[in-house]
Amino acid sequence: MIHWEAREAAKRVLERCDLLGALSESPDSLCRTFLSPPMREVHKLLLEWMREAGLTAHLDAVGNVRGRLEGIRSSTLVVGSHVDTVPDAGKYDGVLGVLLGIEIARVASQTRPHHSLEIIAFSEEEGVRFGFPFIGSSAVSGSFDPAWLTKVDAAGITLEKSLVQFGLDPLEIPGACIPSSKLLSYFEIHIEQGPVLESLDAPLGVVTGLVGQSRHTLEFSGRAAHAGTTPMNLRRDPLPAAAEFVLEVERLAQNTEGLTATVGRLETVPGAGNVIAGIVKLSLDVRHASDVVRLLSVSKLLESSRHIADTRGLKCSIIGNLEQNAVPCDLAQSSRLVGAVLHGGLTVHRLPSGAGHDAMTFAPLCPVTMLFIRSPGGISHNPLESVLESDVENALEVGATFVCDILEDASA
Amino acid sequence: MIHWEAREAAKRVLERCDLLGALSESPDSLCRTFLSPPMREVHKLLLEWMREAGLTAHLDAVGNVRGRLEGIRSSTLVVGSHVDTVPDAGKYDGVLGVLLGIEIARVASQTRPHHSLEIIAFSEEEGVRFGFPFIGSSAVSGSFDPAWLTKVDAAGITLEKSLVQFGLDPLEIPGACIPSSKLLSYFEIHIEQGPVLESLDAPLGVVTGLVGQSRHTLEFSGRAAHAGTTPMNLRRDPLPAAAEFVLEVERLAQNTEGLTATVGRLETVPGAGNVIAGIVKLSLDVRHASDVVRLLSVSKLLESSRHIADTRGLKCSIIGNLEQNAVPCDLAQSSRLVGAVLHGGLTVHRLPSGAGHDAMTFAPLCPVTMLFIRSPGGISHNPLESVLESDVENALEVGATFVCDILEDASA
Repeated sequence: MIHWEAREAAKRVLERCDLLGALSESPDSLCRTFLSPPMREVHKLLLEWMREAGLTAHLDAVGNVRGRLEGIRSSTLVVGSHVDTVPDAGKYDGVLGVLLGIEIARVASQTRPHHSLEIIAFSEEEGVRFGFPFIGSSAVSGSFDPAWLTKVDAAGITLEKSLVQFGLDPLEIPGACIPSSKLLSYFEIHIEQGPVLESLDAPLGVVTGLVGQSRHTLEFSGRAAHAGTTPMNLRRDPLPAAAEFVLEVERLAQNTEGLTATVGRLETVPGAGNVIAGIVKLSLDVRHASDVVRLLSVSKLLESSRHIADTRGLKCSIIGNLEQNAVPCDLAQSSRLVGAVLHGGLTVHRLPSGAGHDAMTFAPLCPVTMLFIRSPGGISHNPLESVLESDVENALEVGATFVCDILEDASA
Repeated sequence: MIHWEAREAAKRVLERCDLLGALSESPDSLCRTFLSPPMREVHKLLLEWMREAGLTAHLDAVGNVRGRLEGIRSSTLVVGSHVDTVPDAGKYDGVLGVLLGIEIARVASQTRPHHSLEIIAFSEEEGVRFGFPFIGSSAVSGSFDPAWLTKVDAAGITLEKSLVQFGLDPLEIPGACIPSSKLLSYFEIHIEQGPVLESLDAPLGVVTGLVGQSRHTLEFSGRAAHAGTTPMNLRRDPLPAAAEFVLEVERLAQNTEGLTATVGRLETVPGAGNVIAGIVKLSLDVRHASDVVRLLSVSKLLESSRHIADTRGLKCSIIGNLEQNAVPCDLAQSSRLVGAVLHGGLTVHRLPSGAGHDAMTFAPLCPVTMLFIRSPGGISHNPLESVLESDVENALEVGATFVCDILEDASA
């Protein structure tokens, strides 16, 4: 392996996170949605940094910044993450993975590798501007749906018009795709956005897969009535029913290994202190790395909601439903990543990703691997989001070992 | 007792409820707040009806319509209720009691009674326009606070200006007061606004008192976090804690005779399906006819909220608090009302009022009595609010017996 100064590179990465973190749509906090004005400066800096790291760089038709290191063969390892943010964001979510990719490419570009390497800063992953995610990575993986072009943002601007206004040509979107025959592998480094690695005192984690998600909206309905004039025995109050359900959700998840189940939103209607609620609406978010475990758990919870409602003479209905299957990371490539972690002198920790990532759009096409960096306090999507410099250094060493290992593997 | 046609009078009362129910600020529903434009026509009709029933009528300085029958003595029995409404109201809440009062006065005015009688249509009871209730009855009972004159409505108009704009003179408010030395008694007929009488198959109920109320706003706080990336054992989710509390509130009220305890509003913050709540805010409304039972119950519930929060490593704080003591109805006068109910051939049902009424402003000054009329379905503050004609007829007979009995009681 080529000698390089990981410590210096980690400092550079963190300085650049600060620089990009200052490029925002709002004056007091970080918010940088798809193709928003500050994205121009982001592109300029990324193109400059990619070129300086030895890559051939350009902006593609959906606003991804792409830096390529041509290998002996055109089979390509993609290392990517995103540069858009949620409102009131932290400065490491997505951006850190892109900047680490550039530093890894700087190492890889010291020689001409066997396979090609592409570092991609995806233009959109958070789904904020147009209400759906993965616009950038879908164009690269070839799953960009042309119907998306007519979707509108909050200002009524279509996705198509947003591209044109930014100076991009929607007709060139197909050219942004890397044909699956040339996709060797996909690798993403990302902050964990959760408290697991911190609780294990671990700087890095090898991701086993991205969990599947079930999202439901449930409605318990009874009869709104006057809180003062309606005795307890003549009430049909849906809130205690919803309360029983919330506790059942917690109980099942606590007793099912690897399951998360969350009621994050609960609303009483009409919602006045002196009126017994007539309706309670609530969200149910269930995730697990195994689709079977997830779907069985959801089924148990919905059965339980019906039982609770029946017992209390109420109605319970499901008024919204969204299902997304789990995406496992590639076993062979993850073993290779484990090797890189061990090579770096670190203990191996494996964990699922509870959140979605650009990696999901590549999983149907090529082996996908992810490396998580510890999130202090588990804090993310928040200005207090942070990383430890030493963790970034470790991620650089492990990532570089892993990437160079793949790029030089002539058997692949 | 003078012969009169209760059936005919009941029909007239209901027709007049329809007439007044059509006088609204909004085109599609009934909403008639304090001194709103439709109130002028209400005043005109009430003055006309009071005079036609044999009363001397006038509009006082806070917009109360008052009809007086001068007795041998100036000691006065006040029979009143209100003619303002909540938004999207029913047509019987308040208005029915006023119109029944006028019919009762028609009977009483057949002779010159020993005591005087005043039928009052209070201008304001619901607290909608200026955010606090009892403007009308406070002026009559002498508890009108001059500081109220500077309070503003949603349009920024002060109470003082609203009076002047309507053509009333705020300087004459003191003259609207009946000195407590001349207040013989206060009687109010009102719809129950709850399901108790209906569940007992009873047309009428003698009110034992107006319950005391404790209103609190509680806040359980934990730590907002990502619903996907935060395992169950690393969460500090305030919603299951709030759920335990909601069930504890229900349990205590169900096991405490006469207690109502309600969480009517519950809000999760930030309130997104994929974010574990950081804060849950909820309202607690506790009512009982006994202040001791109410305050002990509240104290138990607040202790329980602290215990639940402690057990889960959360914080629970009280961020709002309002206490109103119970107002008992007069025992002797209520016995007299019971006599009138028995005289009407009806079974006696006694119940507390879970809601506030104008009667509360008179309770510190003179004996107060209330008669409730069954509310079909327990429905009130709703266009579906209704009454049965036969119940109105019974209320008229019982009310007239009771009022004439008091007016002729020379021992009082």
